[in-house]
Amino acid sequence: MAPHQTPVDEDVSTAKQRVDLVIFAAHVVPVVPRDVVLSDHAIVIDNARIVALLPRDEAVKRYVGDQERHLPEHIVAPGLVNLHTHSPMTLLRGLSDDKPLCDWLMQDMWPTEAKFVSPAFIQDGMTHAVAEMLRGGTTCCNDMYFFPDEACAVLERTGFRGAVGQIVMEFPGPYGSGPDEYLAKATPNLDKYAPGRHDLITATVAPHAPYTVSDKSLQRADALAREHKARVHIHLHETASECADSESLNRASMSCHQSDHKLRPLANLKRLGLLSDRLICAHMTQLTSAEIDDVAAAGAHVAHCPSSNLKLASGIAPVSEMLARGVNVGIGTDGAASNNSLDMFAEMKLAVILAKAQTLRSSSVPAMDALQMATLNGARALGLDKDIGSIEVGKRADVIAVECDSIEMIPMYSAVSHLVYVAGREHVSDVWINGKHLLDSHKLTTIDETQVKETVREWAAKICAHRMEQKTEQ
Amino acid sequence: MAPHQTPVDEDVSTAKQRVDLVIFAAHVVPVVPRDVVLSDHAIVIDNARIVALLPRDEAVKRYVGDQERHLPEHIVAPGLVNLHTHSPMTLLRGLSDDKPLCDWLMQDMWPTEAKFVSPAFIQDGMTHAVAEMLRGGTTCCNDMYFFPDEACAVLERTGFRGAVGQIVMEFPGPYGSGPDEYLAKATPNLDKYAPGRHDLITATVAPHAPYTVSDKSLQRADALAREHKARVHIHLHETASECADSESLNRASMSCHQSDHKLRPLANLKRLGLLSDRLICAHMTQLTSAEIDDVAAAGAHVAHCPSSNLKLASGIAPVSEMLARGVNVGIGTDGAASNNSLDMFAEMKLAVILAKAQTLRSSSVPAMDALQMATLNGARALGLDKDIGSIEVGKRADVIAVECDSIEMIPMYSAVSHLVYVAGREHVSDVWINGKHLLDSHKLTTIDETQVKETVREWAAKICAHRMEQKTEQ
Repeated sequence: MAPHQTPVDEDVSTAKQRVDLVIFAAHVVPVVPRDVVLSDHAIVIDNARIVALLPRDEAVKRYVGDQERHLPEHIVAPGLVNLHTHSPMTLLRGLSDDKPLCDWLMQDMWPTEAKFVSPAFIQDGMTHAVAEMLRGGTTCCNDMYFFPDEACAVLERTGFRGAVGQIVMEFPGPYGSGPDEYLAKATPNLDKYAPGRHDLITATVAPHAPYTVSDKSLQRADALAREHKARVHIHLHETASECADSESLNRASMSCHQSDHKLRPLANLKRLGLLSDRLICAHMTQLTSAEIDDVAAAGAHVAHCPSSNLKLASGIAPVSEMLARGVNVGIGTDGAASNNSLDMFAEMKLAVILAKAQTLRSSSVPAMDALQMATLNGARALGLDKDIGSIEVGKRADVIAVECDSIEMIPMYSAVSHLVYVAGREHVSDVWINGKHLLDSHKLTTIDETQVKETVREWAAKICAHRMEQKTEQ
Repeated sequence: MAPHQTPVDEDVSTAKQRVDLVIFAAHVVPVVPRDVVLSDHAIVIDNARIVALLPRDEAVKRYVGDQERHLPEHIVAPGLVNLHTHSPMTLLRGLSDDKPLCDWLMQDMWPTEAKFVSPAFIQDGMTHAVAEMLRGGTTCCNDMYFFPDEACAVLERTGFRGAVGQIVMEFPGPYGSGPDEYLAKATPNLDKYAPGRHDLITATVAPHAPYTVSDKSLQRADALAREHKARVHIHLHETASECADSESLNRASMSCHQSDHKLRPLANLKRLGLLSDRLICAHMTQLTSAEIDDVAAAGAHVAHCPSSNLKLASGIAPVSEMLARGVNVGIGTDGAASNNSLDMFAEMKLAVILAKAQTLRSSSVPAMDALQMATLNGARALGLDKDIGSIEVGKRADVIAVECDSIEMIPMYSAVSHLVYVAGREHVSDVWINGKHLLDSHKLTTIDETQVKETVREWAAKICAHRMEQKTEQ
């Protein structure tokens, strides 16, 4: 048992309501209502949900928790929602850098994936990623990768929340021979993990990108999503060449979309009927003013991935403009192979400081916007905002605690500013998902760190050996 | 004594050379030569300097250390050089955000400084900043603030390396009545801390900025620097308005330079003779192609501060182009009031991923450039590259160790990539300056953290109370 966690005596007043957990915190940033910081408050949790949020003294009078947690030097906030990632790619972290997206994919990622991606790779990589995300205050990810059944099994086992993409590609890969097989495999998961059916997992349909999925498959994917009330998760307008080469139908370019229409990919998706409030578009660095209006009008969602977009020189999504026109923008890390980490604190800060430089206005996209993008907007994009994304009565208890007393975090004049501009992932001390304590004073409770490290080391050794062989053969 | 640190028995073979310290590391990134990673090597340190860098087995045969440190899961690298900061401003961290530079300075920073900056403020803020920098792997800072004597006293007491700016401004402030007094106060320190005279401290002359220092004072500052072979440290071309309003002599703007010449500030400094290899220019977000050539030809140095420049919406310095044309570019955090941290790992990553997006080439400014900018280039800018900035025999032992076995750091395919794209300040476990162990398994050895926290809390309470009073009065 951790030092601050105490079981409560049985002889408490019967006037008090017994609940599973009470978290007492120096500062609570609930996100809803916006711009509010509550001092010395308690979050009361029962049956995985928040049943009260009230001043400490009142909480002490009214509730007694089977567990009570005292966080006298902490900010408590909603767990962060990583709106675009490829979790198991942690195993390829730093395998290759400083190359254009095309070369990086074709020379390094795809050949390595073709050789290694398997159910075991997904199990181990996903567990590793969940460990990293939990340690850094992320409580939900929107994932897109292969072997989603394995990803779901890891989420169940670790207690982590995820929207798991059922991948669709035009070409054969380690997980399927082509669209027919991918779509067939998607269907049972879309039933099993329909919105609201499972307390951790939601399925999405994930056609990879316009340059890897045909018009026909895109429409089939969207129809399947519509039928199951699921989201569609796609890479979109990630690079300038994706847009230009699709508009000119430059088939020599791997970035050219699979369609026969000379259109920018967003316009093509609109033509196909995919541009709707079901759609989560990752990246979106290339957007005309009219396209922003289209996205806003459709109620489609954007996953802004600033580190990945900068590192791969893809561009900078027009976040300030999108927010101003009512587009729902969340934040994602992308995979650890292109970031090279799953650090949502770094992404939050980068998202807003980059927006300021882009607009030449330091007042644009203030700290609160970053926090809202990384929590509530992500939840809304996933259709989960009734359940997560803020600390409100009735919502699931996905809650994180950030230590504020380290040398790097003091002094603190504003909790919201500190969460965005000062805090690092390393300041996250505790994480609860569905009220379950998954990170307890920096220690994972459902994942064996030593085992993860051993497994990751074995994968890295195999991947290194294979790449050495390939080089020798060339 | 830390677990891995063992005193050596007295009965060692007399054939071995006895030295102060031997550091055995899994990976050494010496920075010089470039792109080299040494596996299983030892850094041998005696009398504050590196006396050998050699494979572990050879080191064991030839040397015995009074202290020996085994770092089997670490990258050892040169300490990071923070090339532009205002250290004591940690006490104002997060006081105000999301405002334009002008408003932020005039509404928040300057009034608070006018009220609070004092010798005690500098002592406490500087100690706090040194603690933060050491914990994050920085071993040297180029500082510009008030009461440099107090800053020097903190460096002496904590064992931290610094270039301490002797501030010059046209206007009265807490430290002086105007240029005469500032320059008079600078002279003794320029003698005492002339390059090479002190084993930790170097003095620079620090005229604040073109908009706060007259042509005459700039020339006097430069003459003083020339006389003492010191550097001149100035804010330059930080914002577009600084350049435009100086060129048009728009006196209504606080960004307009003090000169009567209708020139961009860099051109004016060139006219005045300040543009030389003595000059360290902080920020430089606004540069024409011809100006980059001017800076390169003069051998002047640039302190790139990407977080601060983004957050204040100042712009993005053309790092890739400057490096291509031979400008010596280092990296700085700026003060914690505008960043809001002194995290050089975050700045390294941001510096290069931003350069990639700026040039639309993901191959531009690779990871090794980031590391070199944050070490050797910073040292060169300060005129200290004979002593620090790389792990080479003969140099001072300013060395950091970065843990590579945490969940966030595995797997590792390249140590250089990991230092830049993956590592966070929290992975720095050990820091030596002049061979002195200042951070030992994450614990500061010359600074009492508890005392620092207490002091910072007291300052924050006073500053908050004052701002509340001011608001009430308004």
